[in-house]
Amino acid sequence: MKKRQLGPCITFFPQPMTLISSVSAAGDKDLMAASWVSVVSKTPPTLSVSLQHQRQTYANILATGTFTVNVMPVHLVEQADYCGLVSGRQADKATIAGLHLLPAKHGGAPLLADAPLNVECRLSGEMAIGEYRLLLGEILEIHVAAAAFGADDSIDAAAIDPLVYLGGLRQYWSLGRKVAPAYQAGRRLLPQ
Amino acid sequence: MKKRQLGPCITFFPQPMTLISSVSAAGDKDLMAASWVSVVSKTPPTLSVSLQHQRQTYANILATGTFTVNVMPVHLVEQADYCGLVSGRQADKATIAGLHLLPAKHGGAPLLADAPLNVECRLSGEMAIGEYRLLLGEILEIHVAAAAFGADDSIDAAAIDPLVYLGGLRQYWSLGRKVAPAYQAGRRLLPQ
Repeated sequence: MKKRQLGPCITFFPQPMTLISSVSAAGDKDLMAASWVSVVSKTPPTLSVSLQHQRQTYANILATGTFTVNVMPVHLVEQADYCGLVSGRQADKATIAGLHLLPAKHGGAPLLADAPLNVECRLSGEMAIGEYRLLLGEILEIHVAAAAFGADDSIDAAAIDPLVYLGGLRQYWSLGRKVAPAYQAGRRLLPQ
Repeated sequence: MKKRQLGPCITFFPQPMTLISSVSAAGDKDLMAASWVSVVSKTPPTLSVSLQHQRQTYANILATGTFTVNVMPVHLVEQADYCGLVSGRQADKATIAGLHLLPAKHGGAPLLADAPLNVECRLSGEMAIGEYRLLLGEILEIHVAAAAFGADDSIDAAAIDPLVYLGGLRQYWSLGRKVAPAYQAGRRLLPQ
């Protein structure tokens, strides 16, 4: 396959489009757009978020030790993108975007009621990378829209309808079709 | 929105389905399936990979200081999934899956020729999380399938056709439609 080289730059591959909700020590709530989010451990269940250290959200997370990752659906693309355009120091983003924050089960950072999937986290680690900070969040609770559950209690990802972010291309996409189940699709290649 | 609680567990949201290629000090090459991959910094361009410390790939990366992240397309879903079912200690996964490794531009870990997007990395940091290791890779070079470039030199993500992995659901999906451009879709909500 013939290829072209792009040089050293940030790449693109499917990542989640999320809003991180947080609260300051004084009780001021904020939302920050974040796609540099990944699961990093199963035991304990942990995810990572990388963000610039100048962000209000970073100060809030250090102050309270909590944050919530809210996975944004396709129909809220404008609201999600808006939260990446302005700072929480300049505007009450939730109010302007018509989004709603609720108390979390474990306290601290609120939940975004409008997101079909919320992941409550407790700050459990940190690493500096230039002007960025990679934060680890131990997952305390996951909230999923009840409408996404089928009769057999399975979750239908199409009902969640998460935005897929391709960072290097600066594009939001939707999910397409279910291609295959993981840990099964490759069994045909196992020795018989 | 009514929600159900899943308790503390690994969540699901769009992540890339990749194969990490690496090489041991003795020259033995390996491929490992990895979806816990994320961009973490723009300057320097850096990504993270989280993997279990017992993995052959982890030993290889420590030994050589290099690895390559190969983004897998929909048509190679069986081959990609297979590489997550067996250890490189048990089988020559590339040969069995009919995949092809090539020398990388910067040496060390090879490139997967069959993947439409390869990201050559130099190990630049590490953090332990229980039995997992979060590795940082400074991005040295990105290779993109020439066929994915349009007449205006833009990259068509549909031509890359990356698998989207929803970990907590153990499902591979395809991309759907382009929903909106990032850093533009939310401008309607800015003050006039």
